[in-house]
Amino acid sequence: MNRWMGAPPYGWQDVVEAALKEDLGTGDVSVLGMPETEGRWYIEAQGEGVVSGLGVAAFLLGDDGTSKFRDGDRVNPGDILLKGQSPLPNVLSKERTSLNFLAMMSGTATLTAKFVSAVEGSTTRIVDTRKTLPGLRVFQKYAVRCGGGSNHRFGLYDAAMVKDNHIRAFGGITPAVQTLRRHLPHTTKIEVECETPEQVEEAIRSGADIVMLDNMGTREIESLSHHFGRQVLFEASGGVSLETVGSLAETGVDLISVGALTHSAPALPLHLELE
Amino acid sequence: MNRWMGAPPYGWQDVVEAALKEDLGTGDVSVLGMPETEGRWYIEAQGEGVVSGLGVAAFLLGDDGTSKFRDGDRVNPGDILLKGQSPLPNVLSKERTSLNFLAMMSGTATLTAKFVSAVEGSTTRIVDTRKTLPGLRVFQKYAVRCGGGSNHRFGLYDAAMVKDNHIRAFGGITPAVQTLRRHLPHTTKIEVECETPEQVEEAIRSGADIVMLDNMGTREIESLSHHFGRQVLFEASGGVSLETVGSLAETGVDLISVGALTHSAPALPLHLELE
Amino acid sequence: MNRWMGAPPYGWQDVVEAALKEDLGTGDVSVLGMPETEGRWYIEAQGEGVVSGLGVAAFLLGDDGTSKFRDGDRVNPGDILLKGQSPLPNVLSKERTSLNFLAMMSGTATLTAKFVSAVEGSTTRIVDTRKTLPGLRVFQKYAVRCGGGSNHRFGLYDAAMVKDNHIRAFGGITPAVQTLRRHLPHTTKIEVECETPEQVEEAIRSGADIVMLDNMGTREIESLSHHFGRQVLFEASGGVSLETVGSLAETGVDLISVGALTHSAPALPLHLELE
Amino acid sequence: MNRWMGAPPYGWQDVVEAALKEDLGTGDVSVLGMPETEGRWYIEAQGEGVVSGLGVAAFLLGDDGTSKFRDGDRVNPGDILLKGQSPLPNVLSKERTSLNFLAMMSGTATLTAKFVSAVEGSTTRIVDTRKTLPGLRVFQKYAVRCGGGSNHRFGLYDAAMVKDNHIRAFGGITPAVQTLRRHLPHTTKIEVECETPEQVEEAIRSGADIVMLDNMGTREIESLSHHFGRQVLFEASGGVSLETVGSLAETGVDLISVGALTHSAPALPLHLELE
Amino acid sequence: MNRWMGAPPYGWQDVVEAALKEDLGTGDVSVLGMPETEGRWYIEAQGEGVVSGLGVAAFLLGDDGTSKFRDGDRVNPGDILLKGQSPLPNVLSKERTSLNFLAMMSGTATLTAKFVSAVEGSTTRIVDTRKTLPGLRVFQKYAVRCGGGSNHRFGLYDAAMVKDNHIRAFGGITPAVQTLRRHLPHTTKIEVECETPEQVEEAIRSGADIVMLDNMGTREIESLSHHFGRQVLFEASGGVSLETVGSLAETGVDLISVGALTHSAPALPLHLELE
Amino acid sequence: MNRWMGAPPYGWQDVVEAALKEDLGTGDVSVLGMPETEGRWYIEAQGEGVVSGLGVAAFLLGDDGTSKFRDGDRVNPGDILLKGQSPLPNVLSKERTSLNFLAMMSGTATLTAKFVSAVEGSTTRIVDTRKTLPGLRVFQKYAVRCGGGSNHRFGLYDAAMVKDNHIRAFGGITPAVQTLRRHLPHTTKIEVECETPEQVEEAIRSGADIVMLDNMGTREIESLSHHFGRQVLFEASGGVSLETVGSLAETGVDLISVGALTHSAPALPLHLELE
Repeated sequence: MNRWMGAPPYGWQDVVEAALKEDLGTGDVSVLGMPETEGRWYIEAQGEGVVSGLGVAAFLLGDDGTSKFRDGDRVNPGDILLKGQSPLPNVLSKERTSLNFLAMMSGTATLTAKFVSAVEGSTTRIVDTRKTLPGLRVFQKYAVRCGGGSNHRFGLYDAAMVKDNHIRAFGGITPAVQTLRRHLPHTTKIEVECETPEQVEEAIRSGADIVMLDNMGTREIESLSHHFGRQVLFEASGGVSLETVGSLAETGVDLISVGALTHSAPALPLHLELE
Repeated sequence: MNRWMGAPPYGWQDVVEAALKEDLGTGDVSVLGMPETEGRWYIEAQGEGVVSGLGVAAFLLGDDGTSKFRDGDRVNPGDILLKGQSPLPNVLSKERTSLNFLAMMSGTATLTAKFVSAVEGSTTRIVDTRKTLPGLRVFQKYAVRCGGGSNHRFGLYDAAMVKDNHIRAFGGITPAVQTLRRHLPHTTKIEVECETPEQVEEAIRSGADIVMLDNMGTREIESLSHHFGRQVLFEASGGVSLETVGSLAETGVDLISVGALTHSAPALPLHLELE
Repeated sequence: MNRWMGAPPYGWQDVVEAALKEDLGTGDVSVLGMPETEGRWYIEAQGEGVVSGLGVAAFLLGDDGTSKFRDGDRVNPGDILLKGQSPLPNVLSKERTSLNFLAMMSGTATLTAKFVSAVEGSTTRIVDTRKTLPGLRVFQKYAVRCGGGSNHRFGLYDAAMVKDNHIRAFGGITPAVQTLRRHLPHTTKIEVECETPEQVEEAIRSGADIVMLDNMGTREIESLSHHFGRQVLFEASGGVSLETVGSLAETGVDLISVGALTHSAPALPLHLELE
Repeated sequence: MNRWMGAPPYGWQDVVEAALKEDLGTGDVSVLGMPETEGRWYIEAQGEGVVSGLGVAAFLLGDDGTSKFRDGDRVNPGDILLKGQSPLPNVLSKERTSLNFLAMMSGTATLTAKFVSAVEGSTTRIVDTRKTLPGLRVFQKYAVRCGGGSNHRFGLYDAAMVKDNHIRAFGGITPAVQTLRRHLPHTTKIEVECETPEQVEEAIRSGADIVMLDNMGTREIESLSHHFGRQVLFEASGGVSLETVGSLAETGVDLISVGALTHSAPALPLHLELE
Repeated sequence: MNRWMGAPPYGWQDVVEAALKEDLGTGDVSVLGMPETEGRWYIEAQGEGVVSGLGVAAFLLGDDGTSKFRDGDRVNPGDILLKGQSPLPNVLSKERTSLNFLAMMSGTATLTAKFVSAVEGSTTRIVDTRKTLPGLRVFQKYAVRCGGGSNHRFGLYDAAMVKDNHIRAFGGITPAVQTLRRHLPHTTKIEVECETPEQVEEAIRSGADIVMLDNMGTREIESLSHHFGRQVLFEASGGVSLETVGSLAETGVDLISVGALTHSAPALPLHLELE
Repeated sequence: MNRWMGAPPYGWQDVVEAALKEDLGTGDVSVLGMPETEGRWYIEAQGEGVVSGLGVAAFLLGDDGTSKFRDGDRVNPGDILLKGQSPLPNVLSKERTSLNFLAMMSGTATLTAKFVSAVEGSTTRIVDTRKTLPGLRVFQKYAVRCGGGSNHRFGLYDAAMVKDNHIRAFGGITPAVQTLRRHLPHTTKIEVECETPEQVEEAIRSGADIVMLDNMGTREIESLSHHFGRQVLFEASGGVSLETVGSLAETGVDLISVGALTHSAPALPLHLELE
């Protein structure tokens, strides 16, 4: 059964196999001499959240398709997320790698879902950042989508961001945007990080496609959104928490980016048991 | 300046370069046409904790050696962790990868230090588990040491663990330990996970080197430690929190393993600024 | 001496080393027993064009910096593009790989320069396509810039293109653009390939950022450019030759994409000699 | 259906998969949300030539075996080279990589066939050189065979060539051949590049297996072929064009090597359509 | 048919495929134009010994399962170890790589079996060392097990060894063991190499798990085994030959390690024939 | 100091680093906490032979250049092959990998030298075969040269061999040679393995460059050498030992190939000590 939500993270099998290798090293010494008996196993949720990574676990452990979940589904403690039957040494050697992916990805999906739910009713989208776990970015960005969020750019290569340090290095917003536009493919957008309304104006005038409002107050954001909302996309960013994200969304800002989704989401508790 | 604490995680440079590649893809499009001016930069802590990963950041960004920290040091908000001077496009292209490692590793070191501090005064060591972020295990195990913790086995290959599922697959603790001993190098230890005092007795009789006490009460742990403490090492495990770890240590158990150190530690907040 | 024009193609060293390995196999058998004498060598142009790839040759062969060229310069037969002094076996083993890159990249730069020169005086930019030599895309895209051209998207990952086959698969331009917008990061542009003015209108209405006019007549292009030129970028494409590109540019179209730059550019003739 | 002509280029799948990765990067963003409908597609020739690379396209896209061509066949505009049925997102994501290989390889096969046809009736073989596109040598050498040509050595490792620069470095033809013979496996041939009849004589006397006649006139080549043709193989090289190759072959020379086959062959025009 | 004895060496397929690549390079030139006829082949032992590596040969060549051997079995000249039917070019291109693994691994298994047989009747186990052929360690350690031997540690990472040079570097046995214990996971054993009874005593007192007796006389070994045999494992090592190993085993030492098993075992003679 | 004899084996550093990784795994646990003191070390021969692999050891351990040996030199027990000064943990972690290469390569060089010395006075060359240790072929072929031997082909790609099985598959010697000649580059030699004088005649008539005389008597070899020695190279092969090689050489055969050089050479005994 296909347990992914849409297309899996690009290149996922290579990363999963490398992680398995990391754990196996020169081989699992705890199954030496273990009989090759088949056994029935299941993975059970021990916390509440949104599941992500079932495709990884199914790939490593097998999957008999009788459990009802797929990535993006809500789960509760006691839910059986996946089950199957395989030779025991094989299950035991792959259990930990499977659970590590599942717990990490579900953790991100779960935290994302909380932020998404906190802005429900608004038109604002919750997006991720590049503050991801090294080597796991496409897995985490996939998990954000499972949690109902949207993705920001994937890396330094697929969109241009002019941040405070870039503005200083280029000598201003206008020269930054103009220089980049001259060098960039016409298919690439430019986003400019602004800290004041004056910067916002300059960014828009110089032709930015998106404006990030960095650590601004909700008042200011609301006024800027109303004023310029037709001309560019606005993204609010900086110190956003589950407590503050709701009122931020009420400003009508298009996007709110949250680093914590991918750098500080606690793992979803789960375990594998033999029947 | 060498900012590592002891030996760096094995193979670290390859992982760091792969993470940089993950971010760079076909190149950083936000620095196209940016003047190659040198600039002074610094990384500043925005939270309190134990730093880990300075060697990674120094490798990527350079390091002029004038800041006073090295891995394992306590830091406070406002502390300058690292600084240097480099061409600006270079700094900006590597900033995010550097901070991602530093925040992740320092997060683990910081949480470890809290657990270590909670058992201060006891002889118990806080150890990690294999519940790590895929591909980042040696970095996280290093960070645990930076936080004052000790490492458990590195993978399936360097020690044998007989868990509940292994006991079922082998048909009991005694056959499990005996079969493994026959197949294992004489240099490999065997640890057995036990849920009852009877299992503990059987594990010790069959020749286990280490006994893991899974989700047992402090009373029982104390009694078992007193009884058998000379013959094997005891490791307590399961649902340990900062609140409960202190009383668990008072039982005299040799080791307490904590999965959260490596699967649920929030990132240490920090940022990079130009002077 | 830095002979690149701006940033070199991303990951260039790995590709160059793989190409060297392809030629060397288990070793150059024509230099066995050859004395390790140093010799002076130079690379001479045997045709007219724009040079690209000097950084590759300098990396492989060395470079004493006394020749005056860098990537993007016009060269004529007899011009000395690079010279240096090295042990002869080393030069002879790396000569062919160096020249293969230099001839291929300069070929692309030279053909690009001809197209760019044919639209001189207009505001139209000449851009490349994804019709590149497998494994050499970033080298060829760099060479296009050396020849004065601009780059289109780098691959399937950094911008969305809705072509005739996509329109059929999505069931129309409007559902295509709307579906993609919902799934894409807000940082990603959408370009739609149109064959009729009606399609152009629909593409713009549905929110396309760029419209590709596929094999349209210059009249039609001119009229569409005048009509909608403020709202989107227009790219003309399809069967463009050096003969026709000039009149196409007079339509005021923003961009003309040319597959031949990267799939059919003849190599620039050059050779390496010992002094 | 097996569409290769004899054995495919060695290691071809790895190169094809790397090229696909080059295009896909972190994933094809133009098929997000596209229905997984199956569709029938075909690849159509838009120019005349010799096809090569059908095995690559069949590997990437599938192949229902109802088209009649295999590598090495002549094709005309409108010919359907390959067709099949697959989920549309899959076809669209792999179309460009497939066509890039097919167009590049068929371009080389087509140009080779023109040279081969220009020497028809003679005993001369058309051979390639090491002037190939970096990383694609075995694909191009295969395409040369598809066009009716023969291969020269594959790299620096499988035969020794003593060129003008080698002669200088070894201090003459005789010391070069003698030194190499002493160091080489007895299974390796030595070819010597000569510019004068005196050099040819010396090369043969010193035991060369093959003599390359570099940029010599047809008269001279004819006389040398008659004189020494039984003792060694003669290869003519240098500035050979479709206009001159015929009269060169009339000299009776064994081989004519042509760099343009692999460095300057224009791509064969073709496209993929949905039925 | 599964011809391995227990679990195959970890990561074996990658190593086997790399070895095949080493032999094939750009392709087997001796089968060009060879008809794809199927042929029956068999591998025949030409010497007496213990076979190891049948799984490798079966993987490369195929295996119709009608021969009776599996790894660890004794074989005699004329025994058919493996047979099958495959297209001839395929068999001929893979024959050498298959035989190279089989001959090397069987050579190690055979020599091991001789040592094991020489200590028959004792409780001593024959173990290998890290003196292995670079890149082939897991294959050789597997072959040792096929020959009836046991494995020592797999590398520097899965157990600590304090040798003479380590003792000097740490400043004594006691500081060495204590320092290591402080830094090591609790799952890691420490073995100390001793040259005198005094060192043995110190090693045991400081908490070593295993003591290696380096080049000691059988008398001394016997006395130490009797004295301390309950507290630690004893391993005898150094200059052990088939002539001396028997009397060494009579000392009651737990383990005897033999470098020659993996660095000086002659290949088992065998060849592949067509029926 | 350069300790290689001529060019090192191609790609040697990658293989050496992979072997180091094989030993290190996740890190050397026996040097944890060891002081970083510098120490003087030396490698001492413990047997007599020809050294090979000093460049590998010098690369891994360092080399102060004061010992007098380089690859290809004769050494005796007690000779100091290499010495240097380095931080102790570094030396101890790399000692085993260094010695494993040095002992293996010197073993091959030493056995080769014995065969070479046994044919001294004749014009016969001792050559190796493809019966090498998987993954180590270029190291062993280099060691053969260090021992005074010559190399046969490096793999299946750089010369054609028609063996008994090939003759059967092609349907005879003549069709085999003719078919291959038609498909092979003109730069590739063909060797034919013959078991009877009739086969030798046919091989030569069909244009073979080299004839291998498989398991023939010295009489027959002598007669064939005298008869056809001007037209082809003769290689004797099959069951050659140190006892028989001398009389085989007296037949005047050009080459004698010996599989044992690379599949059954015992390691040269040596060890590393601290001063």
